[in-house]
Amino acid sequence: MAQAVQATIGDSEFDRDTAVTRRAPGVYDAELSAGWTIIQAVNGGYLLALLGRALADALPHSDPFTVSAHYLSASVPGPAVIRTDVVRTGRTLSTGQASLLQYDENGAEVERIRVLAAYGDLDGLTDDVHTSAVPPRMPPYERCLGASDGPPPPVPGSSAILDRLNLRLDPATVGWAVGAPSGKGEMRGWFGLADGRDADPLSLLLTVDALPPTSFELGLKGWTPTVELTAHVRCRPAPGPLRVAITTRNLAGGFLEEDAEVWDSRDRLVAQSRQLAKAPR
Amino acid sequence: MAQAVQATIGDSEFDRDTAVTRRAPGVYDAELSAGWTIIQAVNGGYLLALLGRALADALPHSDPFTVSAHYLSASVPGPAVIRTDVVRTGRTLSTGQASLLQYDENGAEVERIRVLAAYGDLDGLTDDVHTSAVPPRMPPYERCLGASDGPPPPVPGSSAILDRLNLRLDPATVGWAVGAPSGKGEMRGWFGLADGRDADPLSLLLTVDALPPTSFELGLKGWTPTVELTAHVRCRPAPGPLRVAITTRNLAGGFLEEDAEVWDSRDRLVAQSRQLAKAPR
Repeated sequence: MAQAVQATIGDSEFDRDTAVTRRAPGVYDAELSAGWTIIQAVNGGYLLALLGRALADALPHSDPFTVSAHYLSASVPGPAVIRTDVVRTGRTLSTGQASLLQYDENGAEVERIRVLAAYGDLDGLTDDVHTSAVPPRMPPYERCLGASDGPPPPVPGSSAILDRLNLRLDPATVGWAVGAPSGKGEMRGWFGLADGRDADPLSLLLTVDALPPTSFELGLKGWTPTVELTAHVRCRPAPGPLRVAITTRNLAGGFLEEDAEVWDSRDRLVAQSRQLAKAPR
Repeated sequence: MAQAVQATIGDSEFDRDTAVTRRAPGVYDAELSAGWTIIQAVNGGYLLALLGRALADALPHSDPFTVSAHYLSASVPGPAVIRTDVVRTGRTLSTGQASLLQYDENGAEVERIRVLAAYGDLDGLTDDVHTSAVPPRMPPYERCLGASDGPPPPVPGSSAILDRLNLRLDPATVGWAVGAPSGKGEMRGWFGLADGRDADPLSLLLTVDALPPTSFELGLKGWTPTVELTAHVRCRPAPGPLRVAITTRNLAGGFLEEDAEVWDSRDRLVAQSRQLAKAPR
């Protein structure tokens, strides 16, 4: 998307809205922006990126390698506190824990998310690549469908996050928006930030949970709350749009898994994630 | 495998070797058995089951739904302590944290593994199943290869765990044992416990990390230490042997992911897991 002024890593909506301020060693103040809400909740990927930024400050390594988040209660826009704990520091990897907290009407702390994560240095990895994974098959960017290609999709509640993203979905996975879901647990699309900021390891934590849920294409409506999401960042992403493919193979017993993979413009698998979510009732 | 006396859930090698004794609220004593070691380490799945048993006691729900483990240092056979923390209790899910600790030669605590997990009641799930996943294609049990079908595989170090398992590998994924790895990141096999104990949700935490690593079939030798492993238990397994398929799609930068799926005798996908591991050097 052509932009008059393209935002950069460090100076963008995403960076401002995921900023954290160190109040004390390991304790950070944050403000959950209403700009990243979807349906009835603050987007889980946005929150993960915010926790990821706090851990990048708290740990001696700056790049998330594997981040596991348990979502405990629904976050709301407004002030929040992140408490971090350094679990282990090593030469190539460090491990940390973080909790996102908000306050209820009586001023009592309510924990929203708890995270365990290993951080490292992506630029220090070897160049060996031995992969059998291939990028997802989807139409070129121009033939995928963005927010300007039709009426807003029938998502109940907020869709503020859509203004922050440059999301173009594979036409094969947007049947849900016109009342004709494919019945397949697949969602694919091109992903960018609306202000043109390129991807970095922290924004990948947003990317893995930013597409509409596969449950829409399975014919289910409503919120699909994440119980747990683990993301692996495998490579620093190259500039340019990302491709994201999400797959659900097993919707059973009221739960489903969502597997996401993210590919960069150089055809490298830059992130993988899996979440366990509750199916809409 | 016909057994003179078949062990049962609650009275088996696995149950005895994963027993934990509550010393104080949330604190458990355990003994890491040398019977579950492989190459140079205590098996990570065995350790996960041990932590899982402590959490099942500490939390109001008894079945692991999603368990994320970060492996911090190599466990050794001998005494250990597990400290648990109840993070949140809910009607259908409870979340807990646990740490496995051992002591160094100076008596200082060394943390081995830290876990975040959500527990629930598998028997309380709805019966709806909408899955596109199909069981892995592999030869029938009789035509897969067990420990009695040839010389012990050329694994350096301990292979004590093989005596505890009734593992029969798909011949298509055992090339590594005769110096002819397939080059594909695949490992498949039938899985049971050697004493005939049937599977339950806790033993599934062992099952997801009990096959030889896919890196063997990718032509790499040596230990593939787990950085992080997340397992989802989706269904209580039926009696009978399990089928396990492990896939690696991306070996890059010195790391690889291993995706495992476990199917029961009723053709249900009972567990999924993904781990990030360091490739052997």
